[in-house]
Amino acid sequence: MFNKRTKIKELLSLEPNNQEVVVMGWVRTFRNNQFIALNDGSTNTNLQVVIGLGKYEDEFLKKITTSAALKITGVVIPSLGKGQKLEIKESKIEILGESDSEKYPLQPKKHSLEFLREIAHLRFRTNTFGSVFRVRHSLAFAVHKFFNDKGFVYMHTPIITASDAEGAGEMFKVTTLPLENPPKNEDGTINFKDDFFGRNTNLTVSGQLEGELAATAFGDIYTFGPTFRAENSNTARHLAEFWMIEPEMAFSDLEDNANLAEEFIKYIVKYVMQLNREDLEFLDQRLAEEEKQLPQDKRSEMGLIEKLEFVLNNNFERLTYTEAFEILKESNHNKKKKFQYPVTGWGMDFQSEHERYLVEKHFKKPVILTNYPKEIKAFYMRQNEDGRTVAAMDILAPGIGEIVGGSQREERLEKLEQRMKEMNIPTSQLWWYLDTRRYGSVPHAGFGLGFERMVQFVTGMSNIRDVIAFPRTPKNAEF
Amino acid sequence: MFNKRTKIKELLSLEPNNQEVVVMGWVRTFRNNQFIALNDGSTNTNLQVVIGLGKYEDEFLKKITTSAALKITGVVIPSLGKGQKLEIKESKIEILGESDSEKYPLQPKKHSLEFLREIAHLRFRTNTFGSVFRVRHSLAFAVHKFFNDKGFVYMHTPIITASDAEGAGEMFKVTTLPLENPPKNEDGTINFKDDFFGRNTNLTVSGQLEGELAATAFGDIYTFGPTFRAENSNTARHLAEFWMIEPEMAFSDLEDNANLAEEFIKYIVKYVMQLNREDLEFLDQRLAEEEKQLPQDKRSEMGLIEKLEFVLNNNFERLTYTEAFEILKESNHNKKKKFQYPVTGWGMDFQSEHERYLVEKHFKKPVILTNYPKEIKAFYMRQNEDGRTVAAMDILAPGIGEIVGGSQREERLEKLEQRMKEMNIPTSQLWWYLDTRRYGSVPHAGFGLGFERMVQFVTGMSNIRDVIAFPRTPKNAEF
Repeated sequence: MFNKRTKIKELLSLEPNNQEVVVMGWVRTFRNNQFIALNDGSTNTNLQVVIGLGKYEDEFLKKITTSAALKITGVVIPSLGKGQKLEIKESKIEILGESDSEKYPLQPKKHSLEFLREIAHLRFRTNTFGSVFRVRHSLAFAVHKFFNDKGFVYMHTPIITASDAEGAGEMFKVTTLPLENPPKNEDGTINFKDDFFGRNTNLTVSGQLEGELAATAFGDIYTFGPTFRAENSNTARHLAEFWMIEPEMAFSDLEDNANLAEEFIKYIVKYVMQLNREDLEFLDQRLAEEEKQLPQDKRSEMGLIEKLEFVLNNNFERLTYTEAFEILKESNHNKKKKFQYPVTGWGMDFQSEHERYLVEKHFKKPVILTNYPKEIKAFYMRQNEDGRTVAAMDILAPGIGEIVGGSQREERLEKLEQRMKEMNIPTSQLWWYLDTRRYGSVPHAGFGLGFERMVQFVTGMSNIRDVIAFPRTPKNAEF
Repeated sequence: MFNKRTKIKELLSLEPNNQEVVVMGWVRTFRNNQFIALNDGSTNTNLQVVIGLGKYEDEFLKKITTSAALKITGVVIPSLGKGQKLEIKESKIEILGESDSEKYPLQPKKHSLEFLREIAHLRFRTNTFGSVFRVRHSLAFAVHKFFNDKGFVYMHTPIITASDAEGAGEMFKVTTLPLENPPKNEDGTINFKDDFFGRNTNLTVSGQLEGELAATAFGDIYTFGPTFRAENSNTARHLAEFWMIEPEMAFSDLEDNANLAEEFIKYIVKYVMQLNREDLEFLDQRLAEEEKQLPQDKRSEMGLIEKLEFVLNNNFERLTYTEAFEILKESNHNKKKKFQYPVTGWGMDFQSEHERYLVEKHFKKPVILTNYPKEIKAFYMRQNEDGRTVAAMDILAPGIGEIVGGSQREERLEKLEQRMKEMNIPTSQLWWYLDTRRYGSVPHAGFGLGFERMVQFVTGMSNIRDVIAFPRTPKNAEF
């Protein structure tokens, strides 16, 4: 048995008392041939290890380079140095793995986030990405805890799907046919008979439709899994592969849905505020320094932690699409033609600039927009009495834009079938979906939260590629 | 706001005291125009709702059919009937959604599991699948809780991958190229320049290699995500899409790995034993009845709960491949030529029949086999001193076979590169993987647990298609 070590995070909370410990980790710095700053990934705070002067040969000390892996036995003593309560007086140092400091790509200096993306396999070893991924972990756990505590059932909906009806975006094809020479029908189309599934299949864009099936048996369910978009969007807000959380609740309407979404977001933010304070403080400072590079008017009005506290302590603003449309249309910003896309006719889809204006300039807090024009929303959303809107909701967050999209679902079979016909969605392919409206249909609602956008919101990272371990984007599938 | 209801599971734990409640759910049965058995998916136990005799028109009562959705307001009173502590005396019944009992595919009789697979969108409404998927949920939550409590970081490793080096199985291709007419190079091969990622990509078979990258920064990490095999295995034990849990621990050897795996399995089993007792009791009984159809010698020696208790209360048997080989070779079973694949030469890969013999006949408990011949294991496993085995481990479970596969990883750069060359694995494609051995390499280990096999083990379901919501298998991607 090799691993009987104390993790540094735990060790730093001990009272120094000459107790013997074993620690293992990687060297961050080594000063004066005497002070090792050791990190094991459990926290950004390094453990100081003090080496007896003259105890080791130079040959040995030369191997204690940045990123070398060490196993250290020693005792915990109070530290006389500034900045730490305790340190380790070593009795034994073993070098587990050396590291050539000339070649090591992470030099002890500030690297750009762009450069770190190219060495994404090593960037976890920096303070920034250490914090980001510990926070990401805590957010993921908080998601499961929130729904588990409420009695929701976690569903794993399919990743490979034969349905392409949802229309949430372009899809990736999944196949085992030989691309060089796929079998064809007489009319030149692909013959999928010999493909693995015997039919055309794609990567899912959403688990919602399957989630609805489960909700109409278990009442409350949620999904948390990867979803895909084959759109050629090379931006700081888009990924081809990202994780999404999709709760679906039977016996719920749009208001229940909005209430749950707001409670949910506040819960997971509060959870990391309590459990990842140190990481958030680091990220708060990082963001403040990053923003110093920006002109005054581009900087955030609030610091990261200040923003999160503000979100916790204020109700989300709730208004209809129509009310938001009026605000935007009547805004000076619009009248002075400062929007790239002018706000003119009711029914238009809001652009990112409009959403950000509402959230960041007008309300200065998260906003829940409801009851969108039916023409710009999906077929399954419940049709309102006015004949022109549906019971949709989007939640917009400062600095991020749309973070949640949801709706009450159309539970009335006739209305649903009629809308599918209007939108050319084949009802035969979705026979199983329609069955839920045939046999004990119930009012139900749900939403999707893009997990990476949530991580961005909480960590303050401006590029979505910096909150997922190995981003998948156009022309990029490295690692 | 629509949903202000008490879930039936919670309601059943109340003391009946004439308190007013609202319940919503689906009708399971309706007897004598008076007694409704209502289910809302929170538990298999139905709530009895008593209707005042003569209170409603026949027209209305006719709509209370199996699977109709109801909203019921009433008071909780002690039940005079057998089998329940309390019941609801209704003051108001609303029919939320009717259900044509003639057409409803789930008739009030016993359906075969095969038939239920064809209506997988409705099978959640049966007691069997209600229990299976509530247990599946609890197991998933227990997985996260176990690792979170130990300070592991949850990593989302990529689903789409450009690496096909792991060799764990056949892969699905992922592409946006037009299958009818893909761009080609002069030599007739596919030109991937215009594909979404600008290269050949596939669905992942494992997150391990990326997990190792993160473990060498955070120490302890785990993944829990979908993985894929494009193998044409039409059996009760194989899925094309399944969920896998892969912890990876820096500073760990094979013994640490086995210890963690055993602790982990016992933890999640214990968790559901405590929290899903009712569901497990139902499944225990279901299995017993299913096995009554089998000849005596094919039945399990223990009941489901008995088996789980046995697993909790006994150490897993640990032995080497070589020891297991000797046991198998010397067994009467082998000498009497009862194995389909005779046990002859050291180095052979064990078949399912051998594993089951060891687990079910010889040791009668879970077994951890270690130190397999290197020729039958993957390139990344640590080479033992004997030159012919690697530090691999498989855990075999009664009734399931292999449930965990893992190893200590080869942390020595030279040995790893040499083995990759021997096995024709291109080192250039895995430059990032090898970097972890260049810069502060550490002894580390990890394993993969197939989540569906674990759910099978705990629920006693014999076909893996019955423990995942919408199974993906050869020629089948429905729903």
